[in-house]
Amino acid sequence: MTTRRTVFFVSDRTGITAEALGLSLLTQFTGFDFKKRTLSFIDSEEKAHSAAEQVRHASEKDGVAALIFSTQITDEYRDILIESGGVMFDFFESFISKMEQTLGTESSHAAGRSHGIDRDSNYSGRIHSINFALNNDDGATTKYYEEADIILTGVSRSGKTPTCLFLALQYGILAANYPLIEEDLNTHKLPEILRNHKEKLFGLSINPVRLHKIRSERRGNSRYASLDQCQREVRRAEEIYHSNKVRFVDTSQVSIEEIATIILDKTGLKRRY
Amino acid sequence: MTTRRTVFFVSDRTGITAEALGLSLLTQFTGFDFKKRTLSFIDSEEKAHSAAEQVRHASEKDGVAALIFSTQITDEYRDILIESGGVMFDFFESFISKMEQTLGTESSHAAGRSHGIDRDSNYSGRIHSINFALNNDDGATTKYYEEADIILTGVSRSGKTPTCLFLALQYGILAANYPLIEEDLNTHKLPEILRNHKEKLFGLSINPVRLHKIRSERRGNSRYASLDQCQREVRRAEEIYHSNKVRFVDTSQVSIEEIATIILDKTGLKRRY
Repeated sequence: MTTRRTVFFVSDRTGITAEALGLSLLTQFTGFDFKKRTLSFIDSEEKAHSAAEQVRHASEKDGVAALIFSTQITDEYRDILIESGGVMFDFFESFISKMEQTLGTESSHAAGRSHGIDRDSNYSGRIHSINFALNNDDGATTKYYEEADIILTGVSRSGKTPTCLFLALQYGILAANYPLIEEDLNTHKLPEILRNHKEKLFGLSINPVRLHKIRSERRGNSRYASLDQCQREVRRAEEIYHSNKVRFVDTSQVSIEEIATIILDKTGLKRRY
Repeated sequence: MTTRRTVFFVSDRTGITAEALGLSLLTQFTGFDFKKRTLSFIDSEEKAHSAAEQVRHASEKDGVAALIFSTQITDEYRDILIESGGVMFDFFESFISKMEQTLGTESSHAAGRSHGIDRDSNYSGRIHSINFALNNDDGATTKYYEEADIILTGVSRSGKTPTCLFLALQYGILAANYPLIEEDLNTHKLPEILRNHKEKLFGLSINPVRLHKIRSERRGNSRYASLDQCQREVRRAEEIYHSNKVRFVDTSQVSIEEIATIILDKTGLKRRY
C-alpha cells in the first residue's frame, strides 16, 4: 500500500527549477503516492496566503503535512508559506547565506531576476536557434550547414528532431539534422553533403526492437516499421558511422535531455546561453 | 571592476537541474565575472577525480576557491569533489536527510533515477507532443484541434511556435497554433475555425515596437516589419481578443518558459508529465 503525500512546488516565477530539483529528490523515495501541485508566480501577499491555504487544506485532507519545495525569494511570502504547517524545503534560502559568505558580499534578494538578465539577446538568440532547427529539420535544406553548430544524423525516428529542438531551446545551439534514408544506407557510404561537414556530424542510433515499436505506433504493419527493416537500417547506419569515424550515441534508454547533454559532453560544444 | 570566480555545475546525470538552480542563485550576486563550466555524467571514480582536478586548477588560476553546484548523488564521488577545495553547494544532500525524516523512511540513494522512471511512456508521450506541435504549427492544419489541449493564436512573430514547442517538450502538452494574418484581422472577427474551439484558445500579444524590432531582423524595410503595420496588427488582434473574451498574455518582457507557465497558470491546464 502506498502512502499519499501532497507536494507543492512554489515559486515567484515559473516554478520550473523547484519542480526539477523537487522531482529529482522525490525519485529517491519509493512507496509513496505523491500528489504534485505547482504554484507559479506567487509574487504578492495575497497569492502567498492563497498558496498557504492550499498547503493547509492538502495537509488536512492527507492527515499529514504536505511538502513544499520552494524557490521563493521574498522573505515575507516565504514566512507566510512556512506558517501553513507544510514541511518547507527551501531551495533558495538554504544556500544564499553560504554564497554570501563565499563571495564576501550580500545578495540582492531581488525576486524574478533569474530571467531578467539579458532577456532581449537571450530571447532573440533562442528564437533564432529554434527557427534554425525547424528550417534545417530532416534534411529539408542543407544550404545553411556552414552556420550550424552541429548536424545530427540517423535513421527515421531515432530522435533527431526532438534532440535538435531541445539543443535549441535549452542551450541556444544551432542544430540541423539529416535523415539516413534507405537509398543512403544502401550505398554503404556517408551522403556526400555530410562528408563535407564531418567535424560537425553526430550520429544517433537506437535499439532495433525499440525502433520497431516506435515506428509501429506511427505506421503499424508497414515494411517501414517491420523489425527486419529496422534491424537492417540500424546495422547499416552504425556501419557507416564506424567506417567514417562518426561519433554516435544510442538513444534507446535515455531521455531527450540526456541525448542532448551527451552530445555536448562528447563534442565539447559550448552552450550559447 | 568585476571579480572572476569559476563556477562548476556537477551531476551524475545531465546537470540541467544543477545549472537551473545554480544560475538562479548566481543572479542574486552582482559585480562578479562568473566563469561557468558544466560537468555532466560524473558517474565513475575516474570522472570524479578528473572533475576535482578541474576545480583545483580553476581555483589556483583564479587565486580563490571555485564554487561547486552539485546534484551528485553518490557519496563517494561527492567526497572526491569536496577534497578539491572548491566550495560545495550540495543540492542533493542538503535536503535528503530532512526528506527522510519527513517521510519516515530511508532514501534509495540510487543515482540516475531522475530520468529512469517510466521512461518509455514519458519518452513516447513527449515525442508525440513535439510532433503534434510541429504538425499543427502556424495553422498548417486545423483538423486535429479536437485532440489539442490548447490552441495559441496571435500575429506573426508573437511567440506562438516556441511556446508550443516548450509546452510540448517540458509538459507533454498538445499545443497547436493558428496565426492571425492580415485577412483575419481586417474582418475584425475571430476566424471561424477558432470560434469552434474558444475554450481551448489562448492569445499572445506583444508590444508593437518590440514586434517591429523582431520582424525587422527577419525582413528589414518591409511593409510587414514597419512599425505602422505592427501597431495596426497588434491593436486589431487585441480588439478581437477583447470582443471574444479570449484570454491573452503580453509576451514582450517574458521568457519562453514564463509564457508557457503563465498559460498553464491562467488556464488551469494540467501538465501531462
